[in-house]
Amino acid sequence: MNRSGFEKARKKAGELVSKMTPYEKISQLLYTSPAIERLGIKEYNWWNEAAHGVARADTATVFPQAIGMAATFDPELIYEVGDAVSDEARAKYNKNVQFGDRGIYKGLTFWAPNINIFRDGRWGRGQETFGEDPYLTSRMGVSYVKGIQGDGEYLKAAACAKHFAVHSGPEHTRHVCDTKASMKDMWETYLPAFEACVGAGVAGVMGAYNRTNGEPCCAHSYLMEEVLFKKWGFDGYFVSDCGAIYDIANGHHFTETAEEAAALALKKGCNLNCGNTYEKLTDAYEHDLITDDDLTKAAVKLYTIRALLGEFEEQRPYSDIPYSKVNCKKHRELNLKTARQSVVLLKNEYNFLPLKDKYRRIAVIGPNANSIRALEGNYNGRSAEYVTVADGVRRVFSGAEVSVATGCLLISTRGGDGEELLSGALAAASEAEVTVLCLGLDSSVEGEEMNYEADGFYRGDRTTSYLPKPQIKLAEAVCRVCENVVVLVMCGSAADLGEKVNKEAKAVLHLWYPGALGGLAAAEILHGDVSPSGRLPITFYRGDAQLPDISDYSMDNRTYAYGEVEPLYPFGYGLSYTEVEYKKAGVISEDTDTLTLAVTLENKGDHGTYEKAQVYAHFTDSRTKTPKYRLCAVSSVRLRPGEEKTVEIKADKKFIKAVLDSGDRAEPDKEVTLYIGGHQPDKTSEKLCKTKYLMLNLRK
Amino acid sequence: MNRSGFEKARKKAGELVSKMTPYEKISQLLYTSPAIERLGIKEYNWWNEAAHGVARADTATVFPQAIGMAATFDPELIYEVGDAVSDEARAKYNKNVQFGDRGIYKGLTFWAPNINIFRDGRWGRGQETFGEDPYLTSRMGVSYVKGIQGDGEYLKAAACAKHFAVHSGPEHTRHVCDTKASMKDMWETYLPAFEACVGAGVAGVMGAYNRTNGEPCCAHSYLMEEVLFKKWGFDGYFVSDCGAIYDIANGHHFTETAEEAAALALKKGCNLNCGNTYEKLTDAYEHDLITDDDLTKAAVKLYTIRALLGEFEEQRPYSDIPYSKVNCKKHRELNLKTARQSVVLLKNEYNFLPLKDKYRRIAVIGPNANSIRALEGNYNGRSAEYVTVADGVRRVFSGAEVSVATGCLLISTRGGDGEELLSGALAAASEAEVTVLCLGLDSSVEGEEMNYEADGFYRGDRTTSYLPKPQIKLAEAVCRVCENVVVLVMCGSAADLGEKVNKEAKAVLHLWYPGALGGLAAAEILHGDVSPSGRLPITFYRGDAQLPDISDYSMDNRTYAYGEVEPLYPFGYGLSYTEVEYKKAGVISEDTDTLTLAVTLENKGDHGTYEKAQVYAHFTDSRTKTPKYRLCAVSSVRLRPGEEKTVEIKADKKFIKAVLDSGDRAEPDKEVTLYIGGHQPDKTSEKLCKTKYLMLNLRK
Repeated sequence: MNRSGFEKARKKAGELVSKMTPYEKISQLLYTSPAIERLGIKEYNWWNEAAHGVARADTATVFPQAIGMAATFDPELIYEVGDAVSDEARAKYNKNVQFGDRGIYKGLTFWAPNINIFRDGRWGRGQETFGEDPYLTSRMGVSYVKGIQGDGEYLKAAACAKHFAVHSGPEHTRHVCDTKASMKDMWETYLPAFEACVGAGVAGVMGAYNRTNGEPCCAHSYLMEEVLFKKWGFDGYFVSDCGAIYDIANGHHFTETAEEAAALALKKGCNLNCGNTYEKLTDAYEHDLITDDDLTKAAVKLYTIRALLGEFEEQRPYSDIPYSKVNCKKHRELNLKTARQSVVLLKNEYNFLPLKDKYRRIAVIGPNANSIRALEGNYNGRSAEYVTVADGVRRVFSGAEVSVATGCLLISTRGGDGEELLSGALAAASEAEVTVLCLGLDSSVEGEEMNYEADGFYRGDRTTSYLPKPQIKLAEAVCRVCENVVVLVMCGSAADLGEKVNKEAKAVLHLWYPGALGGLAAAEILHGDVSPSGRLPITFYRGDAQLPDISDYSMDNRTYAYGEVEPLYPFGYGLSYTEVEYKKAGVISEDTDTLTLAVTLENKGDHGTYEKAQVYAHFTDSRTKTPKYRLCAVSSVRLRPGEEKTVEIKADKKFIKAVLDSGDRAEPDKEVTLYIGGHQPDKTSEKLCKTKYLMLNLRK
Repeated sequence: MNRSGFEKARKKAGELVSKMTPYEKISQLLYTSPAIERLGIKEYNWWNEAAHGVARADTATVFPQAIGMAATFDPELIYEVGDAVSDEARAKYNKNVQFGDRGIYKGLTFWAPNINIFRDGRWGRGQETFGEDPYLTSRMGVSYVKGIQGDGEYLKAAACAKHFAVHSGPEHTRHVCDTKASMKDMWETYLPAFEACVGAGVAGVMGAYNRTNGEPCCAHSYLMEEVLFKKWGFDGYFVSDCGAIYDIANGHHFTETAEEAAALALKKGCNLNCGNTYEKLTDAYEHDLITDDDLTKAAVKLYTIRALLGEFEEQRPYSDIPYSKVNCKKHRELNLKTARQSVVLLKNEYNFLPLKDKYRRIAVIGPNANSIRALEGNYNGRSAEYVTVADGVRRVFSGAEVSVATGCLLISTRGGDGEELLSGALAAASEAEVTVLCLGLDSSVEGEEMNYEADGFYRGDRTTSYLPKPQIKLAEAVCRVCENVVVLVMCGSAADLGEKVNKEAKAVLHLWYPGALGGLAAAEILHGDVSPSGRLPITFYRGDAQLPDISDYSMDNRTYAYGEVEPLYPFGYGLSYTEVEYKKAGVISEDTDTLTLAVTLENKGDHGTYEKAQVYAHFTDSRTKTPKYRLCAVSSVRLRPGEEKTVEIKADKKFIKAVLDSGDRAEPDKEVTLYIGGHQPDKTSEKLCKTKYLMLNLRK
């Protein structure tokens, strides 16, 4: 774990565990670890969440949902977010302990980030991820982990990379399915972010519910034994997803009994059970399916983490972080900054935006116009303050008359589409000079496994990337009565507004789930106080695009790397209010892992911006199929109006390699070109952005 | 209806109805009245709501819930609210018609106000009323009706006094029960507000679900035929509560069949059926249970209202009210003004409030700290803007650090009390110099007939006036860790915080459901920008007070007039930040109905205020029991710091009369004294307020 306190902590863990009976050890391998009073050990509940802020424990800063953080294309910023999250975690923990609350969601072991590859936009939990690209996911994952964990002797808080390793829907089959991945896809797409996080010292790894290539992910010979422990040398703790050990026997029928499932998982290296199947380890121990040594090994792993968190220190580390840090002003400012950079401007006809103070009458319409839930996303905390889009517009456009209407329900329900809301929306839109139409979804319809089906939705997942019909109907009607319509979409993945609205809307902003202050960020962008700078971390396909089945885990025809369908908006895409020219680029140094480029950019417009410089590798290889393009560097460059700046950008050479069918990486045996610019160098991006790229031929 | 356009409208109605077949007439007696194309008549849906703002039709100004409006003790202010409501109603209607939306909640016939007497604080719908006093309810009801209806030739919108006449819970028996009321109680308590509204020209009266003294309220010989139509000469329309005609046969078994129920109600004078039982009028007509003349009579009543609303005019009245009136700035200001005056300061130990800028660290804690629903109450619209208490405190105390925590669930649930929320609340409170503890209920637990039971709650009603146990537990815990606790209660009726918290809280403010901007009003009061001026429109009994059963409609031991239990806080009570001395009072004129007093008040403190001057009559009579006190005048007097003012206050002589057992009013045959002051002249008020009253002996 690359942490100075590690050996000391492991020693402490060994001492403590050595005093435990086998049964005591077993008790400590469940997430609800009871106290062992004779050893002075307090109870500890391992389950806590922090996908984008401390979650499920009332007040905390609610940062943009992970997919929105990815859209910032700014790993340094996401490090700051992680750092703020763990400040709040410690501040809360210090008080929880003081008031004797050691329950669920009160500890320091966070089961975040979710670094699964969002390979299919219909996955309901895609919102929790950093998108479809292994490089971007690696960078964001590592930044978030480092921010959460800090770099001291002790862990500030413990992060956990999940769900190891090939897991991205569909939700309704997760307890029974077997995700098939070739070695090439595994090593090219699914594993790099996990490898990067392990390399960065992540404290935990969580196994997925499903099987991969035949074996359950919480008891996997290859993924756990071969790769994670042996090849990568992971020395943190491994936890099952919640109920996943139960699934080994009852979902996958991989073992006959729960007892065998528990024994198997323990032996394969799953140290902690979220769930209660490890209670069966008692039987397993008595039936000689496991040994005291197996128990000791697991318990020591867990106690090493607890020791690294400082639980057993008289003077607990980080105990001086005061409760007032929770959702404090500084964190709210960081939240706003992150939200501003997460918003992606998808369309801006004739530079309709920014609105400035040109309009006196503004209507804010739609099911997400005044929605708090659509700010939050899933796995969320509760902010002390929310600014909905309606709130934000009212605040920023203080001289305008702002009317608000809901217009329709989020989705079609048995009770209808909310048709009775339409006339009010048309009333507002018809009297407005500009309508800000707030569409999208929220975590009540898109998210983790739900017992819920509706038109366009299946148990947490989506079945199309079209927005729900009631919303498209509303949008079309609003476009008929108001000339100037700007669409804001709050949604965890892609959204297609349909041909008519795509055409008739003057501008489209994609907000993801932008966090507690997201409505303010959006309003500032609408007004022009801030230039939008987010970029798409996933490809936006048209609603009915011919994509592979969601349960097909092959990367063929998936993501920008191997996609064959012309997208609506490509990965890496996003407009701004200014024009940045890439003037010059060259390699200035190189080592085993990294290629350092010097790139000169000029902001030719009159808005300041954060330019999201991107470097894509294009290469071919005679031995295997290669991606069309592969992102290998990102950098967020702050540019004032008119400013010219030369920056160093480090490209990760791992992503300029061909991944052979064996899974091994190799230097491409044909040409290698780098594309440096503000977007992906694909045809659709070129058409949409009308910007130029710099090209560097590395060889040949 | 005392309206210049009435005769013209009735003529128009007669003409239209004369062209209809009996079957067409029947179709028009249902709230979903279909179009009659051959006569050029459009469809009309009669059902709309506006208890405290246009309700159930998306955006509208959400004023304080009716019980909070009553607490302002300011009928002129409530007239302004009604006027704003009907402006919004017309603005919406004009657009609804333009966009062809004539559905439910889109018309101009509002089934408000609810002027039932809130005789038992456990009634879930008590929040919709103007409290327990017949005089105050009359004044508020009349003001709201006049505000909604306007005084033009045409009705701006149509109000409806409900639920005629003896109706105030319990919710779960409303479809089957018989409320028993003596003639004395009827005329002294239950009927005056209806009589006043009819006298003020209310367009509609709605019959209750229940029976009263044996007969269903939508087919009542005495209440409808004798009193409403004959004695009071009511010439507006009578509508059944929704489903109440069905109940006549199926709930009350007062008739054998639904057909007979429909026929009976129609004959007794119920013109419109909310529900669908009047479809059976077709059978009733064919079986000669009703005549064409019965149908004509009902249809003419309804068409008179539609004509008075201007539906059949080429140039529709009020069609120039623009949509921008809906939830406009002016209405939001009026909303805030109303909320400010609705808040009642119940306790203020050693003048702990106002807080001014004395404290740097403020915690806002409790299940209603950041609740929007608790601002709204039931029968509500949706505001374009909400300011929760947390929002308000952050805005008003801009120099302070404001932390927020939920602390517990609103009520005990099967899943627990939200114990896991406690430590966060204690963390926030323990670091705060002052804690603003936001308790109470919301319309998810207190309101109209619900299929819902929980500790302290039974199907919409409450079973105690103690706040739910989780909240009392939270409050006690917070009082232990924070010295300075101010409790804010959002609730539709009384709330007892329990002995400990009543004692330990430095101050208690009762907010009712204070409307969309209620959190701002509360914060301004906490800070001292506004002095609280609300007064209790109901008696607050202690949580376990020995009160009659909720289904007992006798006024014995009910309300401040006949209550025998010493209250926690009495009717008419409410503190302020200033001291107003009542210096002089005398009768300056008298006519048949009114006694005009001149009262001199002096604001002796340094806060401006709205003083709620109250006049109570005390009288005895040898023939019957008389109330201890009876409110007969209220006046809201704006006083600057130090200002002395003499105002005229008109007392309603109706309420200075004894109501005999026959129901007749008579001059009391013994002494009559008026008490003039800022509170009720009872012992508890004297103890709590330490203020003096002026007394006027009218006779003897």
